[in-house]
Amino acid sequence: MDADELARACADAMYSDDRASGSLGMSLDEVSAGRAVMFMTVRDDMLNSHGLCHGGLIFTLADSAFAYACNSQNQNTVASGVRVEFLATAHLGDTLTALAEQVSQAGRTGIYDVRVSNQNNKVVALFRGNSHRIGGALVNESTGEPV
Amino acid sequence: MDADELARACADAMYSDDRASGSLGMSLDEVSAGRAVMFMTVRDDMLNSHGLCHGGLIFTLADSAFAYACNSQNQNTVASGVRVEFLATAHLGDTLTALAEQVSQAGRTGIYDVRVSNQNNKVVALFRGNSHRIGGALVNESTGEPV
Amino acid sequence: MDADELARACADAMYSDDRASGSLGMSLDEVSAGRAVMFMTVRDDMLNSHGLCHGGLIFTLADSAFAYACNSQNQNTVASGVRVEFLATAHLGDTLTALAEQVSQAGRTGIYDVRVSNQNNKVVALFRGNSHRIGGALVNESTGEPV
Amino acid sequence: MDADELARACADAMYSDDRASGSLGMSLDEVSAGRAVMFMTVRDDMLNSHGLCHGGLIFTLADSAFAYACNSQNQNTVASGVRVEFLATAHLGDTLTALAEQVSQAGRTGIYDVRVSNQNNKVVALFRGNSHRIGGALVNESTGEPV
Repeated sequence: MDADELARACADAMYSDDRASGSLGMSLDEVSAGRAVMFMTVRDDMLNSHGLCHGGLIFTLADSAFAYACNSQNQNTVASGVRVEFLATAHLGDTLTALAEQVSQAGRTGIYDVRVSNQNNKVVALFRGNSHRIGGALVNESTGEPV
Repeated sequence: MDADELARACADAMYSDDRASGSLGMSLDEVSAGRAVMFMTVRDDMLNSHGLCHGGLIFTLADSAFAYACNSQNQNTVASGVRVEFLATAHLGDTLTALAEQVSQAGRTGIYDVRVSNQNNKVVALFRGNSHRIGGALVNESTGEPV
Repeated sequence: MDADELARACADAMYSDDRASGSLGMSLDEVSAGRAVMFMTVRDDMLNSHGLCHGGLIFTLADSAFAYACNSQNQNTVASGVRVEFLATAHLGDTLTALAEQVSQAGRTGIYDVRVSNQNNKVVALFRGNSHRIGGALVNESTGEPV
Repeated sequence: MDADELARACADAMYSDDRASGSLGMSLDEVSAGRAVMFMTVRDDMLNSHGLCHGGLIFTLADSAFAYACNSQNQNTVASGVRVEFLATAHLGDTLTALAEQVSQAGRTGIYDVRVSNQNNKVVALFRGNSHRIGGALVNESTGEPV
């Protein structure tokens, strides 16, 4: 497997067990080494008291894309911290896209940037996450099967 | 109404329309001027691929508590940015408590700290949010009715 | 004056009074609308107890570049908050370059990214700053003179 | 040595080599396990173009206090990232105090909060830093001598 095939195998191993992303209707559109793209459509059960998409769920979409990107190199990795900037509101029916990309990786520690934009390519949120590798692999690198 | 009665009226005006917090099973336990406490029990549809509560949903609980705290003074307020640190994992069935408190308020800009802890009082996440008042009131200060 | 000439006039108005940047040997290499580049060479009075450039002074270089970039549109602007990631150490004699660029500007609130790199183009720090316009101009837009 | 004596020995080992903190006139007022207090008086070579203390130097004071606090347990430790909020301006002649306290320590990773206030006890900045232990000790725990 090359690096992008490995990223896909890691994502497949994760996705079937990722009930949170599934229950929020998120779909994984692309994954490659250090990179992932996810979608989510804003549903009415995601609206806050202002009638806008809850910021926590915009964050959750970004955080899922971050998880797929930072686990794409077959090392179990978790988020240790994030800074997010909310730039625009999201509305019922909007389709949000989160593009996550690796900025740096040194030892067990990584930085990933995630940009969330809407169907008009307007930036809704900017997210910069710190990742930490906790040991262990996601898949067997020969077979691609989950370990 | 005193400041804490006003905070409660603002919370009541928000809560009935807050479908996101409701659909995630969050309950508002306390609210006073600049302060809110919310609960959420980790359900199986909140678990990620590691079988742990998705960090985005821990964030969402904190972000909801932040929203009730920063809107408690009857000025419409939104989150402009947040830094969150994830300190411990949360598991199926854990009951998480988010305590949000105002740290500063100057002009339209505020800072709020939120601590998320589990039923054993272990800190799961620390969240520091920047708020921005966007104009407008939530309730009529004489009657407490939503405006 | 076009936008870039205005940026230069704002920078000129700032630079002569900017004793902190001057005393740390910072030079402003470029400035245009929403963008600035500054240099600093690491001196021995900038070293910490590990014999490395103090992180605070790496931050200060980035913060100065941020200040020139966010004041380049002739509106008095201050930093309200920053997140910085320290990625590599800087050593005595290194020449550090900070490139600041506007990411967004909405109302009085902006976001700027600053990348600090060394003479080998290695990234030393990533800095994302929140700016706030406080009212007032820096220069007369006809003459370019400080107001 | 008890934990606080060890903290003092670590601080002594650091301070004599800490030219950056020294050249900015910072003094270490207190140090104990996971905690440090530093002072700095705002000099005219610390002023920016607005005639206010440069935010980078306020950050630097906080970052120094953070360094003494996170190295107080005799494990070489560096800052990996920081979020800072600037709440009030500081002026020529103000004496700023930075109080740094450990919030958490897990494995090699820590979180420290630093509050910078002025001589009137007004909060100037809030700083939350992420620390990373890089291996090695500062002092011999029997003699307190630098290693």
